[in-house]
Amino acid sequence: MKKAVVLLSGGLDSATTLFYVKKRGCKAYCLIFDYGQRHKKEIGSAKKIAKKAKCEYKVIKIKLPWKGSALLDKNIFIPKLTKAKVPVTYVPARNTIFLSFALSFAEAIGSKDIFIGANAVDFSGYPDCRPGYYKIFNRLSKLATKVGLENKPIKISTPLINRSKKEIILLAKKLKVPLELTWSCYRGGKNPCGGCDSCRLRKIGFKKAKFCDPAL
Amino acid sequence: MKKAVVLLSGGLDSATTLFYVKKRGCKAYCLIFDYGQRHKKEIGSAKKIAKKAKCEYKVIKIKLPWKGSALLDKNIFIPKLTKAKVPVTYVPARNTIFLSFALSFAEAIGSKDIFIGANAVDFSGYPDCRPGYYKIFNRLSKLATKVGLENKPIKISTPLINRSKKEIILLAKKLKVPLELTWSCYRGGKNPCGGCDSCRLRKIGFKKAKFCDPAL
Repeated sequence: MKKAVVLLSGGLDSATTLFYVKKRGCKAYCLIFDYGQRHKKEIGSAKKIAKKAKCEYKVIKIKLPWKGSALLDKNIFIPKLTKAKVPVTYVPARNTIFLSFALSFAEAIGSKDIFIGANAVDFSGYPDCRPGYYKIFNRLSKLATKVGLENKPIKISTPLINRSKKEIILLAKKLKVPLELTWSCYRGGKNPCGGCDSCRLRKIGFKKAKFCDPAL
Repeated sequence: MKKAVVLLSGGLDSATTLFYVKKRGCKAYCLIFDYGQRHKKEIGSAKKIAKKAKCEYKVIKIKLPWKGSALLDKNIFIPKLTKAKVPVTYVPARNTIFLSFALSFAEAIGSKDIFIGANAVDFSGYPDCRPGYYKIFNRLSKLATKVGLENKPIKISTPLINRSKKEIILLAKKLKVPLELTWSCYRGGKNPCGGCDSCRLRKIGFKKAKFCDPAL
């Protein structure tokens, strides 16, 4: 079986990506990041989803000794509706950090594929979720690693990048993703707040897909 | 004063880079990585060098739950002379991991510059030490961050990349780098082994520069 590294946050998109990868017949190795996010709850969701998918997973603990994001700093308020091009929940270079670990992991285990559930349609506007970023990261992958130098580079794939949240939910249903286990809310309280950007995008998606959110 | 993030390993090249950055009148913020390297001793050297340069530093602790390198796995022998294009001491995607943290740190503190002492002349052949890699990382930097999106990207500079070890040593002398504090040996014993790739390159460099190595 072909090995694939999957970045698993515990949200709807990454869970769907994991089941998409499994459907393609790959053996998935999940990477879960504990980076001091205020919605630490997503880590528990990610673990449950990986177990449900019967996949190996590793939790990478990262202690960033700086903040600069509402997801790392509880003193920064997460607004209901953001007008900023890039909202306060943006974590500096987060996906670059995640992908660099994934690249290292993939090369160490001899996997030629990394999958990430990045989305550039119904998203918060983060720079590191856009197609151009992944195009260049793939070029970097060729130059960054030993396998790249040997002309067998590791490929980063973003199967959901151009899909709407509605389409992702419909795909998730088709793939039998345990959506009841997923966690999207940035605030990370006992229940989803319903008001943050992530909750809002999820709510609209389920409405458009004409499904009830099983996580509520 | 212009802020600059400097990756400091504790070796000759990174120490020279730090003093080069200081000479340019920048306020340097050093990043030191504790990534499970067998030559852990370099971390102590890096701290001493940062203190000597009167610079702030942060130590990032990374626990990679995989190996795939002689620098992470004491069971892999480090040969005296390597014939491989990329030697066993290569750590999968190491510089990509380091630079991704540097990118995050630089953006969080409002720095527009990252300096790394990568060298592609007298080097071990690592893919992530070559000029092409940094060229693409700079393109990635523009797309990966909020400041990049705002057209004020963070620049990664490699002032030593095309210099020979001899030239680096001569520059270090000129910049009054405390070379006696630097540590290069991959084996990380009590004293430098003198036989590993890193020791060998250093020895030849000092011989060509006609200086005695003050760390011996």
